[in-house]
Parts: sequence; C-alpha cells; structure tokens
Amino acid sequence: MMLVIDQLFRRIDEKQAPLVVGLDPRLELIPSFIKKQSLQQYGNTKAAAADALFQFNREILAEIKDLIPAVKLQMACYEMFGVEGIQAFEQTVHLAHEYDLTVIDDSKRNDIGATAALYAEAHLGDQLLIEGTIPQDNSDFLTINPMLGSDTVQPFIEVANKNNKGIFALVRTSNPGAAELQEALIGGIPLYEKVAEMVQQFSSKFLGVNGFSGIGAVVGATWPEITQRLRQIMPNCFFLVPGFGQQGATADDTSYAFNEKGYGAIINSSRAIIFSYLNEESQSSKMGDNFAASARKATIIARDEILRSLKNANKTPSNW
Amino acid sequence: MMLVIDQLFRRIDEKQAPLVVGLDPRLELIPSFIKKQSLQQYGNTKAAAADALFQFNREILAEIKDLIPAVKLQMACYEMFGVEGIQAFEQTVHLAHEYDLTVIDDSKRNDIGATAALYAEAHLGDQLLIEGTIPQDNSDFLTINPMLGSDTVQPFIEVANKNNKGIFALVRTSNPGAAELQEALIGGIPLYEKVAEMVQQFSSKFLGVNGFSGIGAVVGATWPEITQRLRQIMPNCFFLVPGFGQQGATADDTSYAFNEKGYGAIINSSRAIIFSYLNEESQSSKMGDNFAASARKATIIARDEILRSLKNANKTPSNW
Repeated sequence: MMLVIDQLFRRIDEKQAPLVVGLDPRLELIPSFIKKQSLQQYGNTKAAAADALFQFNREILAEIKDLIPAVKLQMACYEMFGVEGIQAFEQTVHLAHEYDLTVIDDSKRNDIGATAALYAEAHLGDQLLIEGTIPQDNSDFLTINPMLGSDTVQPFIEVANKNNKGIFALVRTSNPGAAELQEALIGGIPLYEKVAEMVQQFSSKFLGVNGFSGIGAVVGATWPEITQRLRQIMPNCFFLVPGFGQQGATADDTSYAFNEKGYGAIINSSRAIIFSYLNEESQSSKMGDNFAASARKATIIARDEILRSLKNANKTPSNW
Repeated sequence: MMLVIDQLFRRIDEKQAPLVVGLDPRLELIPSFIKKQSLQQYGNTKAAAADALFQFNREILAEIKDLIPAVKLQMACYEMFGVEGIQAFEQTVHLAHEYDLTVIDDSKRNDIGATAALYAEAHLGDQLLIEGTIPQDNSDFLTINPMLGSDTVQPFIEVANKNNKGIFALVRTSNPGAAELQEALIGGIPLYEKVAEMVQQFSSKFLGVNGFSGIGAVVGATWPEITQRLRQIMPNCFFLVPGFGQQGATADDTSYAFNEKGYGAIINSSRAIIFSYLNEESQSSKMGDNFAASARKATIIARDEILRSLKNANKTPSNW
C-alpha cells in the first residue's frame, strides 16, 4: 500500500500543482439559486443548510477536480450546522475520494493524552462499535494544535501511523496575533521553533519514498524569514501553507515553504477560489450563475501564480 | 436574566459543592447490560454505541443530579461516534438542562479569527439557517485553546457574551508534558502567565454580581504553586480545575484554586466518579449492576474531600 504522504506527493507531481483548495463554504456566500433548491427540498431546516453546503461543494469539486491534488475542509464551517453539517462534511470527503483527491480534515483538535487518542480515532481511525470495529472513509490528514506538549501529540501520531493517515501540526499560524505567544522563548529559542523541532523529531521516524513524512506542519506564509527558518528545521515535514489569497501572503512569500527541489509544500487557498464569483464583473456572474466555472478560473490563476513564484525562486521541480 | 456565571455560582452555593462531574463515557467501560440493550434495539451500529453512551449518562445523571451544580462533557468521547455520537452529546445537554445543571462543553476549540467565530457560533450561538436563525439548547460554557493568540480568543468571547454563555480558556493543562511549551518565557514571564493575563483582561470586562466573569480559565491542579500564582493573576476568573482523581492531584492541591472566601473554582472529576463501579468489591457490583449508585457514592466522596480540603485551608464559604 502506498503511504498517504507518497500519494499526496504523487498527486502534486502528476498535476504539477502544489495547491490545496479549501472547501470552506459559508452559507451567506453560497449563490441564492442553490439555497432556494435546498429550501424547496428540506424547508428552512439545518438539513437544508447542510444540503446547500454539499451541493455547493459538489459543483465546485466537479469543476476543479482535474486541476488539484487535494482539498482541505475547515471543520468549523460544517460543525456550525450540527449533525447535518457533519453529514455534509462526510459526503464531501467521500466525493473527494471518488475523485482521487487527498483530503485534509482541518479540525485543529487537541487535548491531553487519553483524550487526544479519542480525537485521533474519531478523525483517522476505524469506527469503534459495541462489537468490534468497522472501517471509515476518513480524511487522509488531520490538523492538530500541538501547543499542550509533545505527550498530547504522540497519540495523534500513533493513530495516524496505524491507519496510514497523516498529521499537520500547527507550528506557526497566519493570524496577526500569532507572534504574541508563539514567539515566547524556551532557552532563547522561539516557541514555534521548539514546536518545529518536536514535529521534525516525530516526522523523521516515518519517511515515505520521497523523503517526506506523513507528520507535517502548518506554517503560515505571512512571514517569509520564519518560513525559511522552519524549512531548515523541518527537512522531512510537508508544509501545509495557509495565508495565500485572502490572508495577505503573496505567491512569492509561499515559495520559501518549498525545498530547493521545489517540493515539500502545499499552498492553501479557500475563499479567493470558492467564492471568486463574488468578484466577477457582470451582474449575472455576480449572482453566482457560473460560480463553479469562476472557481475553476481562480484555481488556474492561483496555481499559475504559485508555479511562477517557484520559477522565480529557481525551484521548479526538474520533471515539470 | 441571570448571567451564566451567576447561575453557576448560585448552583455551587446552593448545593455546597464546587464539583463538576465529567460525563466522559467510554464504550468499553460501560456495563455490558446497557450495551446489550442498545444492541438489541439498534444492532451493532454507531446508533447502538451512541445509545449506550446516552443511557449510561441518563442513569448517572438521575442518580447524582441533586448533588452537583454542573456537568462537563468531553466532546472527543462523543465525536468518536460521528453523527450519532453528537446526537448523544446533544441529548445529554438537554437532559442536564432539564435538571437545572450548568453544562460545560469541553471541546478545546481553536482557530484563527474568522474560523474561531464559526466554532463559537456552532457551540454557543443561535442556529444559522438559510432564512434567519433559531435558538439552540447549547451548553453554557465552552473550553477553548487560546495558544494561537488573543485575536483568536476575541471571537469566542464576543459570541459568548452575545448569547449569555461562558468560556473556559486553557491556561495551564494537567498533563505531564504541559511544562514543555507552556513555560516558555515572554519577557521573562512564563507563557501560561501571559495567557492568564490575557484571559484576566478579557474577563474583567464582564463581571457578574459575585465579582466573577463568564470568561474563566482551565487550570490543572497538579502544580499547587502555579495554581496559587494564577489565582492571584486572575482574580475575576472562575477556574475549571481538571486533574483531581485519575490525574494525580489531591483534594488539597485543588484548594489553591479557590480564593480566600472559598469561591471561584469548580473541580472536575470524571472517570473516578462515573466508572467507580469498576473498583467495587463484590462481583455483581463490578459487573455494573449498580453503577449509578456507585457513581453517587463516589460523587459524595469527591465532594466531601473537596470540602474537607477547603476547611483545612480555612476557605469554607461563610454561609456553608
């Protein structure tokens, strides 16, 4: 069986696109015609709202599936709609898998030891039943918050390895206030570097054929010098890079997340792609008539920007 | 309307019990006869597993509801069983509210700005629908991980205040590895103290009649000197204190979480109470025949230990 990290590597390589699209649907931004259909079918219920999320995702996925290796689902967008929202999440994961896409479950789960193991099993493991377990169509990677200490990270890694799944641990986030606490010093070294060392240590034990590990890191792209430094500290970690598009990082900023050969990172863009129709010029387009086609155009633009920045940085992979 | 923190304060005072019982059911530890009933009704499905969780909670709650002011639900225990698990969580919240208990949703959610707001709405807000919103029977408090920075905490606080809900922010956890990162220094001050200062600052803006705020802190009881220090830094914060019972803290350790008047903290005990039947002497008791009665006995023991430690520390509230 191919390791989940090698599968992601291969998909990026085949599509020549180190880009992950964030399927983070916001009900208020979904085109009205979709919501009308859901209302007609389910009334004004949570089921209708969740249906609108899934229908939106479904049309976007059908339009962009050939361009991208992976999707990332922000759990909060689904959890908002309770049980029905979680069902829309699961439906989207299944569909993405049918399209041979790697799925990143962006849940940022965290807790102390025994409970961390339960979260890991919930998101990456088989389904426990009263008698035995059954397989689940889980996401391939889960994001976690490692700030409570390495003993809270260990259970996630154990469950991930057991199930050929991966982890992206938050090392440096892309929010304005990230510096506040993440730059606290431990023996003169910033917290995020300490976390990076911890993640690298876990990571180096589980390498795929391309030298990368299923234990990766979330590294915000908004501070290029920090990204460069973290790339050095974590040579075996794949980087999941948020902050491109709506959060202020440029494509050039993201190029530091890649290694010298142009590998080892996947750049996330969410709203700038899935809601690009809101920036269209014509009134009918702005109404969402062609929202999925608009998302396709935005996907190509984002991919090409990343590829151009890789080229500018002399990092285009040799076989692309 | 009474503030959610005043309600918690009043319930603790009326029951003379600063104790919150953790309803953290583990399928493998639930008595077989409950699981057999669930299997008969639902077959070997997630619905059966979730039903066993709820039936277990239901019997425990019925037995201990008069003794305690609050329950805490560890989300991971429910999330493990997917959609059906979330339903068991919601059913338990409703039932606890019927018994006039304060409910703490222990989810440790966290994310950057816009997403933090979605998590907050999901757990504490009204339910967004395609047309308008409807009220939800949410938990009263949510635990959050504030380590990503104050701008990631702000949205939780806004949503909490808008909905008369409360927050417990992780300040110092009770796991062995907590020191690793949480003792990183910012200008010579440990990270957890910085987090404490941040939480106190938010907290002091929203005070109830007893001087406490709905913005509280999770403070592990395993290091008494740290607990004492944090009690000084956060005079307006209610402390949710894990680590008593299974995690190695003694009742005396927890007394430092209270202020001089014996207020401002609620001590959590989970497994030591709800699975106390496993420590019974007789074989039939060990099989779980009287698991709820056993939980009641354990609740009384835990409460009395906490009260004794308050007395030893000269902190018994004057009207108890």
